[in-house]
Amino acid sequence: MTFKKILIVSGTHGNEINPIWAVNQINKQENTIDKDIEYKFILGNPLACEKGSRYIDIDLNRSFNTIDNKIYKRKNIYEIDRANFLVDKFGINGLEPCEIVIDLHTTTANMGTSIVMYGRRRKDFCLAALLQNKYGLPIYLHEKDKKQTGFLVEAWPCGLVIEIGAVAQNFYDPKIINRFLIIISSLREEINKLKNNVITLPNQIVVHVHQGSIDYPRDQNANIIGLIHPARINKDWKPIKGGDPLFIDTQCNVYRYEGKEIIWPVFIGEVAYKEKNIAMSYTKKEVIFSSNDWFQEFIES
Amino acid sequence: MTFKKILIVSGTHGNEINPIWAVNQINKQENTIDKDIEYKFILGNPLACEKGSRYIDIDLNRSFNTIDNKIYKRKNIYEIDRANFLVDKFGINGLEPCEIVIDLHTTTANMGTSIVMYGRRRKDFCLAALLQNKYGLPIYLHEKDKKQTGFLVEAWPCGLVIEIGAVAQNFYDPKIINRFLIIISSLREEINKLKNNVITLPNQIVVHVHQGSIDYPRDQNANIIGLIHPARINKDWKPIKGGDPLFIDTQCNVYRYEGKEIIWPVFIGEVAYKEKNIAMSYTKKEVIFSSNDWFQEFIES
Repeated sequence: MTFKKILIVSGTHGNEINPIWAVNQINKQENTIDKDIEYKFILGNPLACEKGSRYIDIDLNRSFNTIDNKIYKRKNIYEIDRANFLVDKFGINGLEPCEIVIDLHTTTANMGTSIVMYGRRRKDFCLAALLQNKYGLPIYLHEKDKKQTGFLVEAWPCGLVIEIGAVAQNFYDPKIINRFLIIISSLREEINKLKNNVITLPNQIVVHVHQGSIDYPRDQNANIIGLIHPARINKDWKPIKGGDPLFIDTQCNVYRYEGKEIIWPVFIGEVAYKEKNIAMSYTKKEVIFSSNDWFQEFIES
Repeated sequence: MTFKKILIVSGTHGNEINPIWAVNQINKQENTIDKDIEYKFILGNPLACEKGSRYIDIDLNRSFNTIDNKIYKRKNIYEIDRANFLVDKFGINGLEPCEIVIDLHTTTANMGTSIVMYGRRRKDFCLAALLQNKYGLPIYLHEKDKKQTGFLVEAWPCGLVIEIGAVAQNFYDPKIINRFLIIISSLREEINKLKNNVITLPNQIVVHVHQGSIDYPRDQNANIIGLIHPARINKDWKPIKGGDPLFIDTQCNVYRYEGKEIIWPVFIGEVAYKEKNIAMSYTKKEVIFSSNDWFQEFIES
């Protein structure tokens, strides 16, 4: 394999502090596993981290498709400047080009340790398959959502998000930090095997493919008038069928799922998504058979 | 008893959203328990609630001792204006005078359902004793802390804080909402009994008296370099003795409690207190014998 540099980003959202701590812990350790690969660690949004807020002007992790947008440039938006800096420095044509990026996130939803892919890129499938094979981690495949674009990992030729929850914003949780340490260590092992051509892909992977999002019930002033139903809270990845409760209001009226197809919800009640009008997103399950192309593309690039 | 109006405040901190929801739920119900008492419900900091932030300019719940501070007034600080508004409207000499105030808060610390008192006012002891007697709730008595003053309830002749956790900021949790519904309902029952002179005080109450606060270990740039030790997380109200672990850094060095006296910690790891340089506060236990004066003062006022 020809790849040499991997970029690990933490603090893309300034109030997701556990992966930052995990990375600081790793940085202080010897690199003994993978001497042929150079790991770069960078704080995605340092100013937001300092303030303990998700972002300063706009969401950095929705800012990577507007790099050449001159209107944004003129407005001097912090996250657009930062997206440009990251790509100029660590992008595939940057000063210190990294071939793979891993972006570390936490969620207030009960997602466990999970992988998020953006689109169906072969190299991403390869990495995701190796991780799912090792730990059975669920994969959320985000695609075809025009309302949500410009994710960081999309600006690199290969990249995954690691998303771990539930954990509150700005709250240090040793169990969550430990999960990041384990997943980063595993990633390095798998990437090292990939580098040395000693991997075996599983026959297939299971992905949860993004279908859409459901907003909270709101009144005419856009105030939320229904909460996630107690039967739904913390039930990320668990199927919802027609008639199942979704929300409940102050008068105990229940709002139910009226669709006919079974759906699998993710990011249930994620605090940061209220402003995006998302109470949960929903997916359908898909089995994808592995292909040698996934692996081959690393060799050819 | 002569008191007629009780003020219930929620949203004093704009990111503590569960009591706001509980109050909305109560507001939609009939008032059947206590027809002789008028309950006023008010949002403490509506602008911060709208933004989902703790406060706009400064902490509203530290702003009630600066009402006549003209320097603040000139600076046009939102929370000072709001503190003035609340006292001018609902204060004991206000337009709609309330004799008792209950301020509803949540914490990211594992405090359970607890009562916070500010100073040793007889009426506060009376109310707190009635609640502790009913449910055995722990009481945190905050006093003699020059760094933390200007709490809302201190601006009324009688008032308690109800503090419930652990729950994340801006995260709706039905279990927490339910706890608020139960405690508010119980408060109303006890206040109704008080109004009708049919209470019996317990012989004594147990309070946890504030002694001081402990900051996180920090580097020379004031960055936090040690987290709450895993053995300490969620252990609010549980005694700490000399040698017990408090913090742990990225190199797994443990910072221990070096005092000789046993202390009882509260607000361990409260997210909002990082900016106040508080990793936890600590208390000592005190048993206080009940006095008829506690009750008598309601009659005389």
